[in-house]
Amino acid sequence: MIYPPEYLVMIPGPTNVPYRVMQAMLTPIINHRSDDFRMLYRSLQEKLKYVFQTENDIVVLTSSGTGAVEASVVNLIRKGDRVIVPVNGEFSERLAKMIELAGGEAIKVKAPYGQIPSFEQVKEAFDNNKNIKALYVVYNETSTGTRITWLDKVKDLIARDDSYFVVDAVSNFAGDDMPVDKWGVDVCVTASQKCIAAPPGVAMLSLSDRAKRFMQDNPPNTLYLNIPRYLKYYAESAETPFTPALPLFFALHEALTIIEEEGLENRIRRHKECANIFYYEFAKMGFEHFADSKCRSHTVIALKYPAGLDDKRFRSTLANEFKVLVAGGFGDMKGKLWRVGCMGEVNSYHVKRTLASVASTLDMLGVKLTTATLQKHS
Amino acid sequence: MIYPPEYLVMIPGPTNVPYRVMQAMLTPIINHRSDDFRMLYRSLQEKLKYVFQTENDIVVLTSSGTGAVEASVVNLIRKGDRVIVPVNGEFSERLAKMIELAGGEAIKVKAPYGQIPSFEQVKEAFDNNKNIKALYVVYNETSTGTRITWLDKVKDLIARDDSYFVVDAVSNFAGDDMPVDKWGVDVCVTASQKCIAAPPGVAMLSLSDRAKRFMQDNPPNTLYLNIPRYLKYYAESAETPFTPALPLFFALHEALTIIEEEGLENRIRRHKECANIFYYEFAKMGFEHFADSKCRSHTVIALKYPAGLDDKRFRSTLANEFKVLVAGGFGDMKGKLWRVGCMGEVNSYHVKRTLASVASTLDMLGVKLTTATLQKHS
Repeated sequence: MIYPPEYLVMIPGPTNVPYRVMQAMLTPIINHRSDDFRMLYRSLQEKLKYVFQTENDIVVLTSSGTGAVEASVVNLIRKGDRVIVPVNGEFSERLAKMIELAGGEAIKVKAPYGQIPSFEQVKEAFDNNKNIKALYVVYNETSTGTRITWLDKVKDLIARDDSYFVVDAVSNFAGDDMPVDKWGVDVCVTASQKCIAAPPGVAMLSLSDRAKRFMQDNPPNTLYLNIPRYLKYYAESAETPFTPALPLFFALHEALTIIEEEGLENRIRRHKECANIFYYEFAKMGFEHFADSKCRSHTVIALKYPAGLDDKRFRSTLANEFKVLVAGGFGDMKGKLWRVGCMGEVNSYHVKRTLASVASTLDMLGVKLTTATLQKHS
Repeated sequence: MIYPPEYLVMIPGPTNVPYRVMQAMLTPIINHRSDDFRMLYRSLQEKLKYVFQTENDIVVLTSSGTGAVEASVVNLIRKGDRVIVPVNGEFSERLAKMIELAGGEAIKVKAPYGQIPSFEQVKEAFDNNKNIKALYVVYNETSTGTRITWLDKVKDLIARDDSYFVVDAVSNFAGDDMPVDKWGVDVCVTASQKCIAAPPGVAMLSLSDRAKRFMQDNPPNTLYLNIPRYLKYYAESAETPFTPALPLFFALHEALTIIEEEGLENRIRRHKECANIFYYEFAKMGFEHFADSKCRSHTVIALKYPAGLDDKRFRSTLANEFKVLVAGGFGDMKGKLWRVGCMGEVNSYHVKRTLASVASTLDMLGVKLTTATLQKHS
């Protein structure tokens, strides 16, 4: 056995998993082609519909979030399809790349990292291009700690070409508002290990009727990520086409039960409140936020490293001396920023312990920050 | 919470998972981009090499076995590639279909279900076709309970065209002999939930140097199943490119530790001995084996339903009255046969409880079988 210490997991996923959810993984193994499984999967559907705020069907894959995002691409995008993609970080870059791998033409609407492309820019991209197959949006850019603020306005934009509206909500779903039906989202993608606070390894997609119809009429060249096949198995027998990660399905079920108990609105409010305290207190400590205050995320706090604070030394001291895990920069941002996940169970204890540990780590490393940045960011 | 009863899980995967392995899932959540994870993944590599009997690199995917089989196809097969595939059941049919979806030409070498294509048939397919890119073999056909008996002879056959040799060993790996290096297997695929006796949700592939080279020089149009990307992340930092199913990685690690403790040879012998008892005793009870005795599996026992024994009634009585799970027929075999998994922990207790429960179920249902078939099958 390998025994890592028990950390406070404040990275942007996986996040801390409640005791009840961990224990649910110990549910004895069942036959995945049996009424026991059907009861589990049907109940998962109902609970997921509540969190997705939708009447649409939902598919659960045994994969990471990236697997489900790729499923949203390979099932919908065909050679030559024109797709508008706001790009402002590593994950939206990766999404554009996936669209190109699938043969699509990714029309990138760019913003500097830390900002978001504006609704007007996206509208302009629609105005300048005809026959748009789809708009793919990374709602919450995990690499830079920003969130897109105008998703509620997209409905009218996509009406012209009857485009599909696809949202990658992996890193803020269940911690930020994502009313699938109200906003007219055709495909919404998320994963278990972020604000849902289940262990990593399963990912979910909701599918509007017209998205389902397209996928069923144009099946993709993949078996494992073949959404029509998942839909068919669910419709015919409430099973998955391939062996599901049973312990993670049970854990997801328990995590969704906790969301019901808390209430989705309360949960989203709690995420926002914790994020606001993080933003305020880190600025007070003298850290500069990476994300523009107009579009900063409620679930991922990105902070610039001041001169004299080394990424590796800072994060390893936090991990080794305080058992608090935070993340470094992703891709091009490596060494330049650090990130705090504000996800799932996050509450005032997590916030206080993180802030206290960061302050003590700065002390231990002899790094003094000024508070000059507070006014700018609070 | 959903609380299914605790079954004796005698289906051909998922199988019973030892207590130690279930508990390993409760290992606290770690950062998957940290030394804690690197230690885990490096140790997994070493343990997997022992069971694969190889010096090759091994990749661990968060997916079912099908996901890993698809990865073996989309990373190796390109448009127009000619691939020889022995086909004698649902899973080998599915493999041939995946090869065709990837643009390959699947040259099927067929045998009736319950039999296996002979080595001579496969040799003939090589003789009749030029420029064979690969031979893909489903070693153990889960749907019919057969195993290919001539994999040790393939090495010379593939030398002519320098073909790749790919083995889907999902349902007998670690319960049957699979010496990857000795048999010259370029890609060997398996999954966690069969004879390794870990929970479902992760799958593994071993990759020879030349298979790796081809994949690196010809990257596939997929991100999630992109093997070169997994290899790169492992080589550079002992990480996975996408968030791994951490609890299942810890469980797999513990399951592999159990295999080390038992010894691979002992484990394979135990599977074979249990399978032999099953074959002998079921025949004695009056059941007819589905698989030809020359090629019957050591890990999946397939049995024909005699007239008067209804699939649904038989299996639900076993499940509800005795808490013993066995599987029905898969695909075309539905209702015609039933299958017993002889996998993982399987020992004389599992065998005896299964046999006793089946005998009592027949009594309860008032079904009398003759013992006429014993001589033919023992």
